[in-house]
Amino acid sequence: MKGKKLILISNDDGIDASGLKSLIEMVKPFGDIYVVAPEQGQSGMSHSISLLEPLRTKKVHSSDGVEIVSVKGTPVDCVKLALNQLLSRKPDLMVSGINHGSNSAISVIYSGTMGAAIESSLYGIPSIGFSVLDHKKTADFSIAIKYGRKVVEDVLKNGLPEQVALNVNFPIVFEADFKGFKICKQTTGVWKEEFDKRIDPYGGDYYWLTGDFNNFEPNNEESDEWALNHNYASIVPVKIDFTEYKTINELKKRYK
Amino acid sequence: MKGKKLILISNDDGIDASGLKSLIEMVKPFGDIYVVAPEQGQSGMSHSISLLEPLRTKKVHSSDGVEIVSVKGTPVDCVKLALNQLLSRKPDLMVSGINHGSNSAISVIYSGTMGAAIESSLYGIPSIGFSVLDHKKTADFSIAIKYGRKVVEDVLKNGLPEQVALNVNFPIVFEADFKGFKICKQTTGVWKEEFDKRIDPYGGDYYWLTGDFNNFEPNNEESDEWALNHNYASIVPVKIDFTEYKTINELKKRYK
Repeated sequence: MKGKKLILISNDDGIDASGLKSLIEMVKPFGDIYVVAPEQGQSGMSHSISLLEPLRTKKVHSSDGVEIVSVKGTPVDCVKLALNQLLSRKPDLMVSGINHGSNSAISVIYSGTMGAAIESSLYGIPSIGFSVLDHKKTADFSIAIKYGRKVVEDVLKNGLPEQVALNVNFPIVFEADFKGFKICKQTTGVWKEEFDKRIDPYGGDYYWLTGDFNNFEPNNEESDEWALNHNYASIVPVKIDFTEYKTINELKKRYK
Repeated sequence: MKGKKLILISNDDGIDASGLKSLIEMVKPFGDIYVVAPEQGQSGMSHSISLLEPLRTKKVHSSDGVEIVSVKGTPVDCVKLALNQLLSRKPDLMVSGINHGSNSAISVIYSGTMGAAIESSLYGIPSIGFSVLDHKKTADFSIAIKYGRKVVEDVLKNGLPEQVALNVNFPIVFEADFKGFKICKQTTGVWKEEFDKRIDPYGGDYYWLTGDFNNFEPNNEESDEWALNHNYASIVPVKIDFTEYKTINELKKRYK
């Protein structure tokens, strides 16, 4: 067992998602696997944590080299519980996903998949979130599995800077048209919502959240949206520092 | 009515929180107020959005210059619904809070209060999240109300750069000891969790999330934690770009 890597896995589509099974398949050749994933779908849960509800765990599967535990909680809850309570040692790698749907551009901030990967990176663990641009339950993960292994291999060999995670998104593309990886920046933009207003059978109003992404830099070849629109898989290194340093000096003048 | 400002308010402690009432009091002198806040407490909900549940609204209050609507949803849901559906025009200002408890350092990423302010800033609205370092329901907001007005006045007069919000935290302090505002960066660090494991009356395990903040730069006078520990209110300009630009070139070399 000496030298065997320990890999922590989580996701936001929940313990039964086919993207989770695909992620296990992707990283299985690299070490022992410990999955701690939400009992139910947690799309759009961002970096949320459970402060008002306690967390409950359930052993779902245990076999040679693969342990699977479900948590009634958020993706970030899963990572905190895994790192602070469930795992006997610090994992060598954390991977999250494979998400059903894009986490490029500003979507990174709404994403539970990236929430989990970023939380893990805060603990100094090399962490990668994987997504494919297909929301369907039956999404095809074969390109992500095959090429995602190259990212995993690179990170296991060369590491990542402290508290940096990777946001890796795969386009929907035939393998013959796939152009490989492109290192990118997060695209600037905003989701403009159009609420779908409906009336329930009892006369009550309710709204469904829908919308379109407004890309502020559609021609920026360094952006992840551009890469994905041109059949590349995008890799954005991410780190959490919300500070807008450029604005500090201006504000200092105002608050003298 | 000509020239009267429109101010959108939300929070994460819910429609009944005393911090919300204090925030209305703070900004009432500056214009008409439209509150869209969660029906229930949403602490720790970060930037989450409701994709699996529809949103329902309830008119709670309507009087001269103050409209209050509650939403069965997250703080970010509230802001999206307000800006895209409920408000007849773009607000001049958005304020969030006053949060019961700190949103300094890395807590900014878990915070529903800041989630709401950041979402609003993405739409190009000057947005401010206010917090006091007191979790109690009975927290004293008088200093925040009085001095928060200075921040509101400044932002209404001078604006903020595009997609930049302010994260304003007030220390627990007597007014005589309060040192005023300090423009800061977000403190680097991580919450180290210690889960409180318990057994329910039926023999089931459950965990409560608790923990301590590990400050990686306790002596950095530019950091928000330092300011708050020295009786300043901290103001951190925040903007969402998760990209870690320093790492892009290193990765480009690896993925040639």
